[in-house]
Amino acid sequence: MTDLAHRFADNPIISPEDVTPTRPGLHVLGVFNPAAFRFQGRTWLLLRVAEGMPASNGGVSAPILAPDAPHGMRMVEVTEGDPDLVNDDPRVFIWRGRKYLTTISHLRLASYDERGTLHVEPGPALEGEGDLECFGIEDCRVTEIDGRYHLAYSAVSPDGFGVALASTADWRFFERQGMIFAPPNKDCVLFPARIGGQYVALHRPVCEGLGGKFIWIARSPDLAHWGENGCLFRTRPGAWDSVKVGAGAPPVRIADGWLELYHGVAEDGTYRMGAILLDADDPARILGRSRRPIMEPRADHERSGFFGNVVFGTGALADGDELTLYYGAADQFVCGARFSVTEILAGLA
Amino acid sequence: MTDLAHRFADNPIISPEDVTPTRPGLHVLGVFNPAAFRFQGRTWLLLRVAEGMPASNGGVSAPILAPDAPHGMRMVEVTEGDPDLVNDDPRVFIWRGRKYLTTISHLRLASYDERGTLHVEPGPALEGEGDLECFGIEDCRVTEIDGRYHLAYSAVSPDGFGVALASTADWRFFERQGMIFAPPNKDCVLFPARIGGQYVALHRPVCEGLGGKFIWIARSPDLAHWGENGCLFRTRPGAWDSVKVGAGAPPVRIADGWLELYHGVAEDGTYRMGAILLDADDPARILGRSRRPIMEPRADHERSGFFGNVVFGTGALADGDELTLYYGAADQFVCGARFSVTEILAGLA
Repeated sequence: MTDLAHRFADNPIISPEDVTPTRPGLHVLGVFNPAAFRFQGRTWLLLRVAEGMPASNGGVSAPILAPDAPHGMRMVEVTEGDPDLVNDDPRVFIWRGRKYLTTISHLRLASYDERGTLHVEPGPALEGEGDLECFGIEDCRVTEIDGRYHLAYSAVSPDGFGVALASTADWRFFERQGMIFAPPNKDCVLFPARIGGQYVALHRPVCEGLGGKFIWIARSPDLAHWGENGCLFRTRPGAWDSVKVGAGAPPVRIADGWLELYHGVAEDGTYRMGAILLDADDPARILGRSRRPIMEPRADHERSGFFGNVVFGTGALADGDELTLYYGAADQFVCGARFSVTEILAGLA
Repeated sequence: MTDLAHRFADNPIISPEDVTPTRPGLHVLGVFNPAAFRFQGRTWLLLRVAEGMPASNGGVSAPILAPDAPHGMRMVEVTEGDPDLVNDDPRVFIWRGRKYLTTISHLRLASYDERGTLHVEPGPALEGEGDLECFGIEDCRVTEIDGRYHLAYSAVSPDGFGVALASTADWRFFERQGMIFAPPNKDCVLFPARIGGQYVALHRPVCEGLGGKFIWIARSPDLAHWGENGCLFRTRPGAWDSVKVGAGAPPVRIADGWLELYHGVAEDGTYRMGAILLDADDPARILGRSRRPIMEPRADHERSGFFGNVVFGTGALADGDELTLYYGAADQFVCGARFSVTEILAGLA
């Protein structure tokens, strides 16, 4: 397999030990899948921080947001060996027929100072709110449109995972616009400009029978209400992206159109990154797609971690031919890599 | 179990033999799941007509819309015993890892004349169009808002089943508004009035892991773009609606609020009907829900057919305390039944 990434020398650039927990007793188990944006002359990341708590009885536990509980959180704890417990994935367990997450995620800011040092903020920028986010919020992508920043993230609850939207101009006050794509849906990215007068998004419904884990496109007059859904591109049997595809970073405008870096999952569960080029005026038209991945798990912290063999790019910043991708590694670390747009385009077919 | 339905004496009111096929060689295998509406002083139904073709090689076949093929349709035929064939459901088969439908559906009008005789039109009112409908269109619900009729139906293709919307004022010319809810989603009903200035819909995403087959509510400024999704109500463990719930007929305005007749599926696969009452001004607020079903499969043509043990109400017309429900029976027949709204309300808890 190929790998066009020039990884940062100091990867991982953020590790769980760099992040302070939100509540007493919680441990930061992962910091990953960062959005990336520029604000007030600096480069910022919006991190997914996943926290958990070792179950006091040696079993498993699930943190759940509960406004009336102490510190706004309650724990579901299940003893190892409980006959109603199904527990074969580090990320989830099933108890009495219901599915729980072992961690709860929030979104946290980090920024580079003038000297290039990365600082993680001491508390959350955005936490889950309401029934549809009581299992947390995850995997945010940030898109700036006309000076306003739009956060598309996964809202997770016992009712499933859908895509919610929040907006901000100053990164202090956020306007929540509700769930824009109902479950089961995730990996939503907004285009950074209106196209034909409309806002455009990519999203990733999850179909188990008819259909698949394909990338869809939708349009909106106002960002809060979406329609005109179409299937944009699909998994490829036998390829590195045969099981799932999902949008990665928000599309980047280049001379040839919109460059979208997406993730693909293979039969063996490995997450790799590839690229797709969309027509500038009609983004439902595909001009090219990576024959081979542009990045795959190679470094130790990409191959092993909370959930290994994952590179998951979620933020991209362009500077001429150089495209910097910020990505999650092994559902545990934040990393960065630089690509040449020319090299990516050369691999499209 | 209970049953509050006063069934029509002449059920089934439409059977497959009453419907002419659209193309040479096709057989009408089912006519079911009718929308109901009033237009030009008459009662009309918009039927789902499912057609199939016996495979010439004694196996299974799938009809697929293909504009360039003869009669606009091609057939995928698979010989019985093909090692790549999985064939254990009359409605679908899997071949070489891909899922196909054994029938293709379109929407057809029927209307009652002055003497109360029901006439089925000789051809389709609406057929599938484009990639997202190449496996057909199904299970339409019709809602009249301000003199215009809106058709919310399942659009089916290899990319999954989603909800598409078409509108008409005269039942001759239809304006297609695209896919409003991406797959996997179906059973969408529009409320017959704006509430708080917005259009409101119920819809039914399909979650296999986290979440379930629950009924969601969404809002729209323009009918074509939807957001503000929320989970309205869920399946009930151990009850007659423990596996799936889905909206049935479009909500009917009664003195107490919005009355929604919905279907629930039990562990044994039986489809029954129940009711839910929603607040008039805030339809996300539930005022009551049927403890027990209001109708269940009892007649022979409800208990056996193309897919047995199904009553599936999709159109309701109110006249004072009398509510007439038009429903599909066993995925094969169109039937009708009358209810007393008072009796339905008495069973809510």
